[in-house]
Amino acid sequence: MRILVTNDDGVQAPGLLALAQEMRKLGDVTVLAPDRNWSASGHVKTMERPLRVRETHLADGSDAYTSDGAPSDCVALAVLGILDEKYDLVVSGINPNANIGHDVTYSGTVTAAMEAVISGIPGIAVSLNSPPEHGERDYGPAARAALRVAEKIVSQPLPEGVLLNVNVPYLYDDEFKGFMVTRQGLRVYRDALVRRQDPRGRPYYWIGGDFPTGIPEDGTDVGALAAGYVSLTPLQLDLTARAALDPLRQIDW
Amino acid sequence: MRILVTNDDGVQAPGLLALAQEMRKLGDVTVLAPDRNWSASGHVKTMERPLRVRETHLADGSDAYTSDGAPSDCVALAVLGILDEKYDLVVSGINPNANIGHDVTYSGTVTAAMEAVISGIPGIAVSLNSPPEHGERDYGPAARAALRVAEKIVSQPLPEGVLLNVNVPYLYDDEFKGFMVTRQGLRVYRDALVRRQDPRGRPYYWIGGDFPTGIPEDGTDVGALAAGYVSLTPLQLDLTARAALDPLRQIDW
Repeated sequence: MRILVTNDDGVQAPGLLALAQEMRKLGDVTVLAPDRNWSASGHVKTMERPLRVRETHLADGSDAYTSDGAPSDCVALAVLGILDEKYDLVVSGINPNANIGHDVTYSGTVTAAMEAVISGIPGIAVSLNSPPEHGERDYGPAARAALRVAEKIVSQPLPEGVLLNVNVPYLYDDEFKGFMVTRQGLRVYRDALVRRQDPRGRPYYWIGGDFPTGIPEDGTDVGALAAGYVSLTPLQLDLTARAALDPLRQIDW
Repeated sequence: MRILVTNDDGVQAPGLLALAQEMRKLGDVTVLAPDRNWSASGHVKTMERPLRVRETHLADGSDAYTSDGAPSDCVALAVLGILDEKYDLVVSGINPNANIGHDVTYSGTVTAAMEAVISGIPGIAVSLNSPPEHGERDYGPAARAALRVAEKIVSQPLPEGVLLNVNVPYLYDDEFKGFMVTRQGLRVYRDALVRRQDPRGRPYYWIGGDFPTGIPEDGTDVGALAAGYVSLTPLQLDLTARAALDPLRQIDW
């Protein structure tokens, strides 16, 4: 079994190393990840410029590849055969912060798994719900949870067109309440515009504000994390708002 | 009524001009659009660098604003109050090519409307199904279709959390078969890896291949366009694969 590991924080991120090391227990691991941080970069297909791919090493000395493309570009390059390998599974992460609620539409971690699913390969996105500003993190429990989830997915495949969005609470393994299958919940964004002036007196702007919170409703990703569960949300790429179809058909367009 | 118009092709794109001109018949239009092309850029929130906003003019001499952020950043900046205005509607486009099937996960045009909906403002994405390589396009029919759709949406609002993805066939107004409410269909991507060597003998790669096709199933966006209808697909930001929840709950995690 051959597993592609990528992320959106860049090939040298410690979360990727922890994930790659655990995944080696399940199969042959190839790492192809961006050469820089692409957080909140969304689902990208880079077509207006060529991409570079070069060999590098992870901190444990193992071989890896890195590209100047986005996370979804890394998956596309690998799936299109840049390394002359075929993959049975794509695992993306471990993102240092949760990807829950509407985050999944922005998340490079999740869109890498989307790209896999579009290519017909099972995709898993893994994120750790650690505090937003935090020093060194322990990715071990999340990596072990990711391995357990990947093992199950190999024996009981996901439906076609579905990726699994895994969010792990920031706890030790024996503190997890368990694994919970959830639906996508609601994030509460608290963005604010920050106006500054450059040294020449011209304005510039940051999208700032506070770290998003969420509504910890039962049965959702937000609620599962708040209760100490590893959240497993199946996501699809069909965004059709089916409940809106009939009301819209009543309108005389 | 105040309308924000943006796009993913850049503020000087002719599709944006045609859309802004039509939308002025419905309300006060503000244009804030990227200063470059962001096609296939996905849903972006730029937080690692500050953003600039400057005044510019469209080809008809009207005032506009442009930013070095992505389409969704332009919407975020506007909604967060950079121009001290509140918006009742965000319309994004007109993209020169259709955004159907899985395109909606990559599309800057669609993600601009997503960003509006996350902020609680109705969002409409408008795309024209013109041939991939094409010279000057006539955006008039699509702009008029967009106005008609926007007028209806103002009188009969979309459900909360739902955006409308409008795709217009490349026909004259009187050739449209009508307006059809559709579900998201299936794109068939035909990407291929193109390997080249730079003048120093080092490899680089293009994500190349042929323009995507689609499966023109009845009731889908792909099918509606193929049959000459303006396709109206309600899209939601909850990606939960509900049909997968119960099967996944059977697994002993």
